[in-house]
Amino acid sequence: MRATLLHQAGDVRVADVADPKVQQPTDAVVRIVLGCICGSDLWPYKSQPFTEHPRQMGHEFVGVVEETGPQVATVKPGDLVVAPFTYSDGTCEYCRAGLHTSCEHGGPWGVNGVDGGQGQAARVPYADGTLVKLPVGEDSGLLPDLLTLSDVLCTGYHAARTAGVRAGESVTVIGDGAVGLSAVIAAKLLGAGVPHAGGQGRIVLMGRHTARTDLGREFGATDVVTARGEEGVAAVRELTGGHGTPRVLECVGLKDALVQAAGVVRDGGTISRVGAPQYSEVPLGFPEFLRNITLTGGVAPARAYIDELMPHILDGSIRPGRVFDRTVPLEDVAEGYRLMNDREALKVVVRP
Amino acid sequence: MRATLLHQAGDVRVADVADPKVQQPTDAVVRIVLGCICGSDLWPYKSQPFTEHPRQMGHEFVGVVEETGPQVATVKPGDLVVAPFTYSDGTCEYCRAGLHTSCEHGGPWGVNGVDGGQGQAARVPYADGTLVKLPVGEDSGLLPDLLTLSDVLCTGYHAARTAGVRAGESVTVIGDGAVGLSAVIAAKLLGAGVPHAGGQGRIVLMGRHTARTDLGREFGATDVVTARGEEGVAAVRELTGGHGTPRVLECVGLKDALVQAAGVVRDGGTISRVGAPQYSEVPLGFPEFLRNITLTGGVAPARAYIDELMPHILDGSIRPGRVFDRTVPLEDVAEGYRLMNDREALKVVVRP
Repeated sequence: MRATLLHQAGDVRVADVADPKVQQPTDAVVRIVLGCICGSDLWPYKSQPFTEHPRQMGHEFVGVVEETGPQVATVKPGDLVVAPFTYSDGTCEYCRAGLHTSCEHGGPWGVNGVDGGQGQAARVPYADGTLVKLPVGEDSGLLPDLLTLSDVLCTGYHAARTAGVRAGESVTVIGDGAVGLSAVIAAKLLGAGVPHAGGQGRIVLMGRHTARTDLGREFGATDVVTARGEEGVAAVRELTGGHGTPRVLECVGLKDALVQAAGVVRDGGTISRVGAPQYSEVPLGFPEFLRNITLTGGVAPARAYIDELMPHILDGSIRPGRVFDRTVPLEDVAEGYRLMNDREALKVVVRP
Repeated sequence: MRATLLHQAGDVRVADVADPKVQQPTDAVVRIVLGCICGSDLWPYKSQPFTEHPRQMGHEFVGVVEETGPQVATVKPGDLVVAPFTYSDGTCEYCRAGLHTSCEHGGPWGVNGVDGGQGQAARVPYADGTLVKLPVGEDSGLLPDLLTLSDVLCTGYHAARTAGVRAGESVTVIGDGAVGLSAVIAAKLLGAGVPHAGGQGRIVLMGRHTARTDLGREFGATDVVTARGEEGVAAVRELTGGHGTPRVLECVGLKDALVQAAGVVRDGGTISRVGAPQYSEVPLGFPEFLRNITLTGGVAPARAYIDELMPHILDGSIRPGRVFDRTVPLEDVAEGYRLMNDREALKVVVRP
């Protein structure tokens, strides 16, 4: 089959790789219908040294089950399914606690003999624990929306959930990428952005790209702050009566974004980070200790949220697939990377 | 009156200062019956440069109200009271939310014309918002226990509460100082340390001073780990089935203690820090992001917890005053500092 390989920074190619096969009784093989490129794919795309053993890229996909091992019970050939961005056994104590990303048998796509999501097909370990059946057909117009359940929508939702967003509260979302925009959707779903029980109910989106922040407004942001750094912090504080917001969703992954988060969070409030950290230490020292700032979040256990979020997509109340603004055929995946890396595209669908 | 002044590192003296007087209608003047020395007093004791304007030291005291301003309604002359380690108005939105340490009109003792707690008396701003009446006499044997409501017990409790300690859970407490031992009391109060609903219910105390860890066992610790660093982490993991504990109470304030906390916390778990940070950045980068580790805690809003904790002292179910192992008269306060700094005493009462 054809799949996407990253050889080194800037050098992404589609090549022939071995066809996936059921290897374990708990495996399934899925023919991929839609994949996409993630903001986190851009970090290796920008920085990976040359390797003679390029990994298969991609960790988000919707597809049709082609074959299942004898122990697979919850999906069968012909089912349309979505895969979260890590596979997981669904039975260990972490999975039972909803932390599928710490699964004792789980792991990421594209390494250790497991395929990536930017290809024609994938072997799915622990198919029962990993895959979720979609109650629509392969030709459904909702497929891009349902594809966001793989990662980006669940990641935004993880930010909002772990931050403890509640009805009527004000929230600041830092970053207008696809995760930030998904965090706006999530904050709105949890009742932020609407005054309630004395709360101001603002969703402040911090970002500089008008097309993206415009989409953020449609998703539920009540305010957009384009300034960054101290100026941006001052603007958010002015919007929120001087004190900042009790919840801040950090959707970038850079230290500057964390500093900004600490600046806009209200005393006693919570910063949830879901941007993959490009830093090794968190700038929360004595001043933030005195202000009782909490840092939470982390990599999203997407599998834990799919069942909960899917109905909102199926009934049309949210349209997270609007973060996809371009589609490329698999053979042109390199162009998709270029578009995202050059910020010409927000998020790119890859169609095998 | 006589009060404790810190002139520079290692140079603490008792000197005459102006007698406190009611200055604002919301003030009270309190004659101090018992004060004490805090671990956090040792940081300036170790490091403060020479100053011509030495500050009054001490922020924990029990005393008798001598005079009140005309707007003070909740305490009256003759009342025995405890003061939390910051004063607060009790009415602003932070105080109403239980975050008295962020009070819009509050502040620390010993600066800005407010007296310290290691002296004969203190002017108390916002007496209604700050002081809590004690239902015992000045000669009660419970006074040392009630004095811990000023800071150390509430600080340990803040760690346990913000970490979200629940019945049956396992908790690691890092640090066998007075705060760490108070955190053990607090974890036990919240139901840790006893198997419940499938939880192992361990309270693991990490510390190296046998007299202190012995007291920790009496307070409720089920296990003591004397090793530090990687060896200590391995020991805690071995005690807890390999995964560590879901709650970790960091009662030291050094970066090494945070690294240790990250090592012993279970994936998806929470580290609460209540040791005053002697660092500017927190070592929680990509690995801890992947493990969904939360960092919470901060300076304890002691005032918020006094009403809740006092009954446990009055009925004798907890004896937090056992952290005091020495008493010095006010004139010998310098010896009290030396004893604590040299680790000859755990925590020292100062009796004016």
